[in-house]
Amino acid sequence: MKAIHISEKLDQIHDMWTPKIISQLNDYHIKLAKFNGNFTWHDHEETDEMFYVIKGSMSIEFRDEIIHLNEGDLYVVKKGREHKPVATSECHVMLIEPKGTINTGDITSDQTASNKDWI
Amino acid sequence: MKAIHISEKLDQIHDMWTPKIISQLNDYHIKLAKFNGNFTWHDHEETDEMFYVIKGSMSIEFRDEIIHLNEGDLYVVKKGREHKPVATSECHVMLIEPKGTINTGDITSDQTASNKDWI
Repeated sequence: MKAIHISEKLDQIHDMWTPKIISQLNDYHIKLAKFNGNFTWHDHEETDEMFYVIKGSMSIEFRDEIIHLNEGDLYVVKKGREHKPVATSECHVMLIEPKGTINTGDITSDQTASNKDWI
Repeated sequence: MKAIHISEKLDQIHDMWTPKIISQLNDYHIKLAKFNGNFTWHDHEETDEMFYVIKGSMSIEFRDEIIHLNEGDLYVVKKGREHKPVATSECHVMLIEPKGTINTGDITSDQTASNKDWI
């Protein structure tokens, strides 16, 4: 395996809210995504989810609080906790979660993306 | 939980080669470490290990190749693969691996660090 250059991988992502897999850590996938706008309220019943902001800023809305993340900030959403990612301008994010995790959790919406796309 | 500001956490790390836990993702620990110099040859029999370079540059030496990582580069060392991290100047790294993972693997050396220290 070669070193993975995150910036080169991000250049290959053109659509918002479509996480792409860049590497695998045991049975976890390391993904990159671009966010802009409002995402679907959802949760992941079986797993935590890591967000790390590479560029830009975003928020994670919960029913009882909002977490703001700037470049270089990290947050782990605990399993089963309903959340809604929001970005007021384009934000680049690294996500880590078990392979097979679907971006909208149990919800199917027009924002539901493939969980199998590698770049 | 609050957003984790990686740069503020790094300010709390003063020793080289002493990974500190900053968050937990299911049964994985997200750690930060500062590297400078040569680390011990070792492997992790049971797990892959993720390296992501936040600042500076480093190499991961294997018996048959050397992988160079600059800021914004990521690499997953596969389980059981003997490796030696090296940094010619101070490098700041995010590591992700199952909780309990020991930095020197099965080797005990003066570089073996606690695997329980949170910052």
